[in-house]
Amino acid sequence: VWIRVLGSAAGGGVPQWNCGCANCQEARRGGTNLQPRSEDSLAVSVEGDRWLLVNCSPSVQRQIEAFPPLHPRAPRHSPIAAIVLSNGDLDHCLGLFQLRESQPLTVYATARVWEGLVERNAIFRTLKRTADQITWRPLELNRAVPWEGGLGIEARPIPGKLPLHLEGVIDPSPEDNVGLWLTNERDGRRVAYLSSVADASCLTESDLDVECLFFDGTFFTDDELERLGLGTRRAAEMAHLPIGGAAGSLARLKSASARRKIYTHINNTNPILRADSAERRAVERFGWEVAFDGMELRG
Amino acid sequence: VWIRVLGSAAGGGVPQWNCGCANCQEARRGGTNLQPRSEDSLAVSVEGDRWLLVNCSPSVQRQIEAFPPLHPRAPRHSPIAAIVLSNGDLDHCLGLFQLRESQPLTVYATARVWEGLVERNAIFRTLKRTADQITWRPLELNRAVPWEGGLGIEARPIPGKLPLHLEGVIDPSPEDNVGLWLTNERDGRRVAYLSSVADASCLTESDLDVECLFFDGTFFTDDELERLGLGTRRAAEMAHLPIGGAAGSLARLKSASARRKIYTHINNTNPILRADSAERRAVERFGWEVAFDGMELRG
Repeated sequence: VWIRVLGSAAGGGVPQWNCGCANCQEARRGGTNLQPRSEDSLAVSVEGDRWLLVNCSPSVQRQIEAFPPLHPRAPRHSPIAAIVLSNGDLDHCLGLFQLRESQPLTVYATARVWEGLVERNAIFRTLKRTADQITWRPLELNRAVPWEGGLGIEARPIPGKLPLHLEGVIDPSPEDNVGLWLTNERDGRRVAYLSSVADASCLTESDLDVECLFFDGTFFTDDELERLGLGTRRAAEMAHLPIGGAAGSLARLKSASARRKIYTHINNTNPILRADSAERRAVERFGWEVAFDGMELRG
Repeated sequence: VWIRVLGSAAGGGVPQWNCGCANCQEARRGGTNLQPRSEDSLAVSVEGDRWLLVNCSPSVQRQIEAFPPLHPRAPRHSPIAAIVLSNGDLDHCLGLFQLRESQPLTVYATARVWEGLVERNAIFRTLKRTADQITWRPLELNRAVPWEGGLGIEARPIPGKLPLHLEGVIDPSPEDNVGLWLTNERDGRRVAYLSSVADASCLTESDLDVECLFFDGTFFTDDELERLGLGTRRAAEMAHLPIGGAAGSLARLKSASARRKIYTHINNTNPILRADSAERRAVERFGWEVAFDGMELRG
């Protein structure tokens, strides 16, 4: 399986349009210590010819152009064979509205995520201009569905929350936020993608026994925004388990047997973005990598 | 007045994600003959400190980062003081959903464009998290509203069409598609922005007596998509007056007294994108310029 990290930031990316924090300033200056990042998304392929996108970020156009295997190979064509959504957050779905121009799309999503998008947004009609333009493949929880080339997609419920725009509109459901386990059925090797995790205690040893674990790296500390004077909301209120601290993911997942552990969905304020930070050294000491746009994994 | 062309392409940009036409291929190769372009938008400022965006494209994040005067000057800040929408097309509005993070926004739009966005899309609630996050300033037709620094904004109805996603949902109205006249009240000098024009016969001599006219350059010929084997719809069916031909904008606007005439909202298939094309030479011979991302006008 060939995996390309199309984007590795939380909503807003790095730099964020209205943010002048030290990280965003450094990203704007350029240089190697902190590289700009777009909203988290993966491209996954078994053979390298047809691709599955994991989430569809607002920067999807740029992410496609930066990776030639996703370029069209005919006057009207896309190697993007399907898209799977981990939740209905705008940083994971807004890119769908950029994949228009009457190109057929197949989307894997839970019923809740799908209905929240399709039934409540008139703009979605731009993707339903013809009967065969958009095809929904329902993701049922804990049931793998076979995709192309012998790749299985399984969604498992992960503590998270509703997208901001649906809070107070619909009741929360376990289908609102899922982790995705992609299994190469030829050799049984698995990749797990968990970009929004409020609480890791539901994860079993088996859940974490994967070739590669992508995990929520939104914040390093629970009070990160408050400390920087950028807001009052805590990581916990935003349904993101911080990396550091006694209850953080670094400590919780210390014994996870994943061969590679990679933080993604990294907020612009997170100190692990800086190659020279103590927090980056800390996560690396625990065997974690920090995802970056353009990172690739093969095998 | 300082004007920056943030984007100069029609919906989908150049290259377009699912297009392998000769222009898109050349844009991907790089080089100077055809430069990539994002969806059409302007940034306009009187003093250079606070800016008005004309339309808000899906590439707005990238457009902001490419133009330092739009960068934040404090930990949470944006020099973007307001946004004015010329219609409800996704290539003009989708960027609003990227200007989140609880930053207050002021949007000028006709009632029809505003209602089509706000009342029919749950995702819009992401911009209404606090009472003062988004402020709508209604644009009434043919009535200038004063903006900051002595800049007046006037919307005039222009033949166009409903956004695709609202066709069959609401009835067409003259408020669906407007041209924007921006007047520097100190010296009376005006800029007109008409990025979607189905028919130019409504335009008076006075309408066109401006310092700078930005005009719909979507297609060069009415059957451009069909000729290239990329679709069957004619420019006229898509409510865009082509540039060429006896009835095209080049002929129609030959005697317009605008000091500068600039084609924008240029589709990826349009031959004027290529510096070496006969069509580019033709429009230049008639005194037109071809907008590009990063073009600036001062004065």
